[in-house]
Amino acid sequence: MILTVPGSEAAAARLQARLDAEAGAAFVRHFPDGEVYVRIDSPVAGREVVLVGGLERPADKILPLLFLAATARDLGARRVGLVAPYLSFMRQDSRFHPGEGITSTYFARLVSGAVDWLVTVDPHLHRWASLDEIYRIPARAVAAAPAIAGWVRAHVAQPFLIGPDAESEQWVAAVAAQVDAPYVVLEKTRRGDRDVSVSEPDLSRYQGHTPVLLDDIISTGRTMVETLHQLRCKVAREPLCVGVHAVFAGGAHDDLLAAGAARVVTCNTIEHPSNRICVTDVLADAVRAEVAP
Amino acid sequence: MILTVPGSEAAAARLQARLDAEAGAAFVRHFPDGEVYVRIDSPVAGREVVLVGGLERPADKILPLLFLAATARDLGARRVGLVAPYLSFMRQDSRFHPGEGITSTYFARLVSGAVDWLVTVDPHLHRWASLDEIYRIPARAVAAAPAIAGWVRAHVAQPFLIGPDAESEQWVAAVAAQVDAPYVVLEKTRRGDRDVSVSEPDLSRYQGHTPVLLDDIISTGRTMVETLHQLRCKVAREPLCVGVHAVFAGGAHDDLLAAGAARVVTCNTIEHPSNRICVTDVLADAVRAEVAP
Repeated sequence: MILTVPGSEAAAARLQARLDAEAGAAFVRHFPDGEVYVRIDSPVAGREVVLVGGLERPADKILPLLFLAATARDLGARRVGLVAPYLSFMRQDSRFHPGEGITSTYFARLVSGAVDWLVTVDPHLHRWASLDEIYRIPARAVAAAPAIAGWVRAHVAQPFLIGPDAESEQWVAAVAAQVDAPYVVLEKTRRGDRDVSVSEPDLSRYQGHTPVLLDDIISTGRTMVETLHQLRCKVAREPLCVGVHAVFAGGAHDDLLAAGAARVVTCNTIEHPSNRICVTDVLADAVRAEVAP
Repeated sequence: MILTVPGSEAAAARLQARLDAEAGAAFVRHFPDGEVYVRIDSPVAGREVVLVGGLERPADKILPLLFLAATARDLGARRVGLVAPYLSFMRQDSRFHPGEGITSTYFARLVSGAVDWLVTVDPHLHRWASLDEIYRIPARAVAAAPAIAGWVRAHVAQPFLIGPDAESEQWVAAVAAQVDAPYVVLEKTRRGDRDVSVSEPDLSRYQGHTPVLLDDIISTGRTMVETLHQLRCKVAREPLCVGVHAVFAGGAHDDLLAAGAARVVTCNTIEHPSNRICVTDVLADAVRAEVAP
């Protein structure tokens, strides 16, 4: 049975339709003082419950999610799983400065205590090699690369993939291999949330190609904006920006268009008008593998 | 060492001064996409760490609190305690309708997993007899009644205490006993967050008294507003409203004045201009009892 965490209605409806699963009724409301009320109006006793809840903007979502999971368990669900198309807090994967909290670990512990399994799309695995290093529950990371490669093949003539920094290489290399296109990865220097610079790419061999900038998370968009600035006046074809997760803090999407992107295209892990690449099939496959009888 | 959870700066400073404890440096910021960064800049290894963090408006506070606690443990703190002058989610202490989540239990489990002990002021214990029923860690509830009684004695001539509903009786009876004043408890019927009615009190014997309406939590204020309406034109002296916790959702404070309260006075468990009754001493005593060497 699919239960929707508020904010993930569209993803839950797509997944429910693709799986031909029962749509359960979960009700969440906020009291005037900000406390949360949850109720599950469908019979979950003895059932496999699949919560669908993306974890972008986590402050609004974590308590409804944890409380719905606890309620489902309380009401006798056989197991409670979580499909979080976007998994937050993966970027703090080390103590970069003394005293820092390694929030990826703490958040993983929190989720591991609340649900029995987890499925997500392309978590930001950089220093952690696998979700298994921090999640104590079965945690599947499904890859958006095949879906992205399919979109690039269908829409881009002679793509040339560009990863704005070393962390993006895993996604860029995978998509490049699947579309049989060349790629380059730039070097990024970050001085603050919105203050980054990237190295100048050598474009001499790819003048006839269409640059496709690819990253897993587009948040403030500064890294991609800087990359677009590096391409300005150096390429014959307008570059495209492709992101897995449309986090888009502030005016990031408009900033990318203003910086010269012909289009900005994302996967449907976070609802956004730029969503063009559908990962519902791979999510559905992963859920089927988890709850198969 | 005292560490402040953002939002509880004033309470932490008062407690730190009263305990003559070291003020540790905890830093919390939000990334542009809503994720949370935490860092503790004071040496906590081997130390008793006291987090001060009220849990009103819990969505904004729960992740910083959980992450600071996890970071302090990670950095080797001997124990991590939490002083939450206001503890949220205590009102859902039963499954009133089928399928409801008993959030008081789930929240208690969350906090119990994060810290080693808890001190709070007058949690809304109604169906739960004690915090020990839901908290797996030492959990002390300190009483505001002595401080409230002290304020009433000093400021109110011939007080007559009124509790607007049965749940308020524990606070009203305690304060009435300590100020040696009469009290009555009304009957409340709730039809929604902001739709309540209360029974008409018999005021015939207390015409010369000052009505003091007392409750633990003033949230939307509707219960107190209805009680004030019941008193209108029936009492010679304008009534006062006293609350332990100034939750004050929306325009609750102004609504009470508009409904006829001469004054609205609260304890300093949640910062508000109506705070007049200080519970810092009792909180400090409870912390001393917990971290005594």
